[in-house]
Amino acid sequence: MNRDILLQAQERVAPYIHRTPVLTSQLLNDEAGAKLYFKCENFQKMGAFKMRGAANAILSLSQEERDRSVVTHSSGNFAQAVSLAALKLGVKAYIVMPENAPDVKKEAVRSYQGEIIECESTPEAREATAMAIQNSKGATFLHPSNQDEVIIGNSTAATELLEDYPDLDVILTPVGGGGLIAGTALSANEFSGKCVVIGGEPMNVDDAYRSLKSGKIETNTSFNTIADGLRTHLGDRNFPIIKELVHDIIRVEEDEIIEAMRLIWERMKIIIEPSCAVPFAAVLKQKSTFKNKEVGIILSGGNVDLKNLPFEQKV
Amino acid sequence: MNRDILLQAQERVAPYIHRTPVLTSQLLNDEAGAKLYFKCENFQKMGAFKMRGAANAILSLSQEERDRSVVTHSSGNFAQAVSLAALKLGVKAYIVMPENAPDVKKEAVRSYQGEIIECESTPEAREATAMAIQNSKGATFLHPSNQDEVIIGNSTAATELLEDYPDLDVILTPVGGGGLIAGTALSANEFSGKCVVIGGEPMNVDDAYRSLKSGKIETNTSFNTIADGLRTHLGDRNFPIIKELVHDIIRVEEDEIIEAMRLIWERMKIIIEPSCAVPFAAVLKQKSTFKNKEVGIILSGGNVDLKNLPFEQKV
Repeated sequence: MNRDILLQAQERVAPYIHRTPVLTSQLLNDEAGAKLYFKCENFQKMGAFKMRGAANAILSLSQEERDRSVVTHSSGNFAQAVSLAALKLGVKAYIVMPENAPDVKKEAVRSYQGEIIECESTPEAREATAMAIQNSKGATFLHPSNQDEVIIGNSTAATELLEDYPDLDVILTPVGGGGLIAGTALSANEFSGKCVVIGGEPMNVDDAYRSLKSGKIETNTSFNTIADGLRTHLGDRNFPIIKELVHDIIRVEEDEIIEAMRLIWERMKIIIEPSCAVPFAAVLKQKSTFKNKEVGIILSGGNVDLKNLPFEQKV
Repeated sequence: MNRDILLQAQERVAPYIHRTPVLTSQLLNDEAGAKLYFKCENFQKMGAFKMRGAANAILSLSQEERDRSVVTHSSGNFAQAVSLAALKLGVKAYIVMPENAPDVKKEAVRSYQGEIIECESTPEAREATAMAIQNSKGATFLHPSNQDEVIIGNSTAATELLEDYPDLDVILTPVGGGGLIAGTALSANEFSGKCVVIGGEPMNVDDAYRSLKSGKIETNTSFNTIADGLRTHLGDRNFPIIKELVHDIIRVEEDEIIEAMRLIWERMKIIIEPSCAVPFAAVLKQKSTFKNKEVGIILSGGNVDLKNLPFEQKV
């Protein structure tokens, strides 16, 4: 990947995103035995790094394409990201969502003026519905993780982090669809001579870990994890990057994810979503790997349902 | 109050505290119809502004006094603040707490090496126990809110905020024992030609509101508020300052406090405690007062029990 492409993307998306702060915590450094630098994409517009990829993807379209509209299928953060990026750029956005998606997710999309098209809750229905909108509206399809412009947009979080902390030994991200870790790996490869990239993945949906082992894209058969943003699998655009540039993927158990999430909430006083706690859980699980290292962690998002938290409930 | 005294306090406490960030949110600005600047004392060491007053009070003692120890009675943030400030300064701290104080509060004090002395859960027992320690150990008593050095230490949050945003029209704080709002009023009076100070107080414990009306220190007969840091009343050191320099106190209902807290958690992705949401609730309640104004809000603390949150529970 050409360094200029990454820098151009950074310049392109800058007016449409927050340059998020990097927070540190002496308590968590002591806990981990490493120096941790948390890149707070939970403070990003619409609450997640996905804004970066969505903005870059729409900005990369021609005016003619923008005039026709965009479409994606997502019930998560990418739906909100496309809606908000499109709104800011005066582009019509269609969001295909399963009819049983939670109301809170639908409301978030509507608040950014995305138009929701409901479909049955199967991958086939989702793709068929999105395809129908491409055909009828001339909409350009945007994939949440497996598209070059999205991956390159996502790279800008790591680029900012390395500008602020050029001496990082490692950057960790969660691994879901692969779009964030691939972008991060491109950035670390271009902008640091030494920084490796490591993923954190729930043991229960460890498709990316197995993909790195087998050399081909693996999938999951069950999806039982609290880290609901990480239930997807890698794609043909991001897997080659991950295979070449990602150093390792560390798997963590559900209770380790919740404990890492609790520590960040209690000690740092910031709200992160479960998926976002996975890389920190990986650091705590495998402390020897990170001992005394300078460790960047991309806190990917902060969209949680406050009515449904994993901490022990009122008695 | 002499400007030099406030500036000296700022210099004195600086090595022992965080200069906390000021966050903004376009969404909350839109909601309020004003420009809001949130001074994040929830990110302060031990999680609350109380660290400022405790540090300044201990730093103001002679070496002989420090060698003898300090004592306070508190089951809240001031207990942690005194413990941590004393630990950093090599001073022994005794913390008088009611025997029925929650374990989580006791553990927090112990984690900062404060020595807990338990007593019965009455004001009389609390004061008698603290007095006994003053007598037997020669400990200096530190009051959570009604002591000049504590009030002056607390002023440093507003001083920092006005350094960052000199054009503020108003600064809001919660009102509990009066130590934060008094310090804030001293600072605004010295460092701004126009900035007024307004308090937010729960309707259910509106002693400070009534005190301003009657001109004497009023107390509460019931203490039924989620804002557990605000159940105390004003004192003879801070009330004269408040009477002279505080512009107004706005009272809010319990549901308004919870809604303000939820908005800050959801939109800003930061954790604040219920007491801390009261000034923002006041802004939302009385929008016309703040319309298009530059409004500083001191987010006083972020110590919450994640197992016991006021948001609607899991079904």
